[in-house]
Amino acid sequence: MPVFLDATSAGFEADFAAFLETKREISADVDATVADILETVRARGDAALVDYTNRFDRLSLSADGLEIGAEEIDAAIAKVPPADRAALELAADRIRAYHEKQRPEDARWEDAAGASIGWRWTAVQAAGLYVPGGLASYPSSVLMNAIPAKVAGVEELIVCVPTPKGAVNPLVLLAARIAGVDRVFRIGGAQAVAALAYGTETVPKVDKITGPGNAYVAAAKRRVFGHVGIDMIAGPSEILVIADAENDPDWIALDLLSQAEHDESAQSILITTDAEFGRAVAAAVEKRLKTLTRAAIAGPSWRDYGAVITVPDMATAIALSDRIAPEHLEICTSDADAVAARIRHAGAIFIGAWTPEAIGDYVGGPNHVLPTARSARFSSGLSVLDFMKRTTVARMSPDALAAIGPAAERLAICEDLEAHGLSVRARLDRLNRGRE
Amino acid sequence: MPVFLDATSAGFEADFAAFLETKREISADVDATVADILETVRARGDAALVDYTNRFDRLSLSADGLEIGAEEIDAAIAKVPPADRAALELAADRIRAYHEKQRPEDARWEDAAGASIGWRWTAVQAAGLYVPGGLASYPSSVLMNAIPAKVAGVEELIVCVPTPKGAVNPLVLLAARIAGVDRVFRIGGAQAVAALAYGTETVPKVDKITGPGNAYVAAAKRRVFGHVGIDMIAGPSEILVIADAENDPDWIALDLLSQAEHDESAQSILITTDAEFGRAVAAAVEKRLKTLTRAAIAGPSWRDYGAVITVPDMATAIALSDRIAPEHLEICTSDADAVAARIRHAGAIFIGAWTPEAIGDYVGGPNHVLPTARSARFSSGLSVLDFMKRTTVARMSPDALAAIGPAAERLAICEDLEAHGLSVRARLDRLNRGRE
Repeated sequence: MPVFLDATSAGFEADFAAFLETKREISADVDATVADILETVRARGDAALVDYTNRFDRLSLSADGLEIGAEEIDAAIAKVPPADRAALELAADRIRAYHEKQRPEDARWEDAAGASIGWRWTAVQAAGLYVPGGLASYPSSVLMNAIPAKVAGVEELIVCVPTPKGAVNPLVLLAARIAGVDRVFRIGGAQAVAALAYGTETVPKVDKITGPGNAYVAAAKRRVFGHVGIDMIAGPSEILVIADAENDPDWIALDLLSQAEHDESAQSILITTDAEFGRAVAAAVEKRLKTLTRAAIAGPSWRDYGAVITVPDMATAIALSDRIAPEHLEICTSDADAVAARIRHAGAIFIGAWTPEAIGDYVGGPNHVLPTARSARFSSGLSVLDFMKRTTVARMSPDALAAIGPAAERLAICEDLEAHGLSVRARLDRLNRGRE
Repeated sequence: MPVFLDATSAGFEADFAAFLETKREISADVDATVADILETVRARGDAALVDYTNRFDRLSLSADGLEIGAEEIDAAIAKVPPADRAALELAADRIRAYHEKQRPEDARWEDAAGASIGWRWTAVQAAGLYVPGGLASYPSSVLMNAIPAKVAGVEELIVCVPTPKGAVNPLVLLAARIAGVDRVFRIGGAQAVAALAYGTETVPKVDKITGPGNAYVAAAKRRVFGHVGIDMIAGPSEILVIADAENDPDWIALDLLSQAEHDESAQSILITTDAEFGRAVAAAVEKRLKTLTRAAIAGPSWRDYGAVITVPDMATAIALSDRIAPEHLEICTSDADAVAARIRHAGAIFIGAWTPEAIGDYVGGPNHVLPTARSARFSSGLSVLDFMKRTTVARMSPDALAAIGPAAERLAICEDLEAHGLSVRARLDRLNRGRE
């Protein structure tokens, strides 16, 4: 049974606080293993990659088999049915169009002191995208990671995807092709992160690594962070639906289940102003679970972590939502746009009953790589900016230096940084001599 | 002696590659200690904070002494000389004006399918700023961290600064006051990071932690990353100066020394088209080192890690600079703006001989918290965006859903996510029934 909470009941605050604190994932302590894998790949390069890949994925590769070459990709994607290809292309076009609007502007201006200051954005040169193998090998995730990188201007975009027992997902390869990925390697786990972070004879070193993965991949990304850039460390994901009684309970049930079916640790929450509607949705969930293919995943997720919270008004719904800071927030109310405008912490908002969260997973346009586990309080979904960086620029005229240099010299003295002060003073003295 | 390299010599590529790989910092293995401190503060709250603070900073506080109250701040800053205060205020005004230009724009548009999509930016609610104690307790860093947070709209901005044996820097407190910091605590080290990340009875939990620190602070930030947001993990910093022969060697020497005097691990590099000028700068450095207050720091930095690289032309200078990806890049050439425009990887660029790097440390306007150790390849200096996050929004009309929903359903089926597909199908069926 999911938890049923009523925001007007006496014990609500304690119950809700406990609910927020519930751990949904036991993070395996894999850090020592991962540290060893990283060091081994760093030291031994391809030889280590081949060893790990053959052992973990039950293959018998040599180093020249690590890359999935263009012909192999061609052959695999030739098998993709036209309808699947068309759907992927529609998704890619929409994701590209959305992310193209995220390209940031350079700026440069002259201020009152006569200083010319501003900034310039440039793309990361090389990026690596980790794609999980097996069940969670999602072509949509390839699009969502690779397209922003290419829109940013990344020249060398590498995908690493494990192929357990040789199995490769043709749709993943097609998504990589459509998104403009430059090279694909059949490498997974911490060894893939190591290869991308340090480079080997065969795998190019990249500057930034993104993409989801298991506990080993997450631990490896955390360890190489700083040496290369990484995206977020993703936790189990969640959806919050705010819905009034004017909704079809079955639609809302399916939206909750479309999160729950991802992972037993996923979380689906309904906040509603109508307790009876809440019960109807819960009943609709149970009915759907009777036939759902992934009921063995969605059922435990819903029963262990699901929640139906009844609130007296929309203001309470909004306040609770901000405390949850959900990855996905669906707002199915009569004034959905107005409610959305009052939300502060959420990864992505889906407004109105015609916008099921699944649209955002595939074809909406916005990115589906989003901050989980309440991290929407401080972070954003993946974007073009994750593959770019900003260089600030400043140019002083002699007059500008004369105007603001003495304050810099003063502060340098306060901080006991003599050379800093002298580097300004030497120039000010020259100016003063020139003016005598 | 710094290393002298000539880009036209036979062994240059190997020498330069070795130079790039030189480790400048032995990172102490403090991770186990830090993990223990984090867990203890998380479990015991204020009691642990008081224990650690009294032990490490040789104080005898109780929990109600952890905060530096308004009266204590008033009393401390009353002692600051007016010239120092004026310099800090000039710096703050310029930093604020620059960062106000970084406020990002929201966007919302309707696309060809009739979908209304876009994004909204909101501020992080609470942020914590770590300020080191002792020698490296820099008021300028308080401004550079706190002002972007306040420009972003952070409501609750907390500073933690250790006060070893009770010593507190009045200029740090004044900078905090000028920048609009809300509360200040006399707590340092990993225990400060723990307090900010988890909250205690006295210290509020924040959403984002920024600011420099020693190996313990860095390890603590790396460990809490994900639970809260952090800025970068800063390494030893560096300056690269590209200069032609039309410069005063003493100016360039002072610019190199203003990096070297920070830290024995700091690195100062000159790239020049004129070997003789390079030798003149090296001679000027040695001359200045004879009298510089911090010669005991700047000397080892210059001799162990400094470099003078002679190049045949500006194109080579630019290419080498991008491989170094310097935190600070100073360009003192006749066509400095044109050279700057061709640089791809740098934290901040200082253009022309009238723009010593020290201007950027204090009063230029751009942030002085910048990516070190070649991380300008993938990251940016601190900005207003570090204290904001983006929520994407999407609203489908029934027509938009009819247009793009089938592709989403198709991809959901490809990914074996049945509920995703059904959540779209249920709505499409309703539309189709409505149209029959």
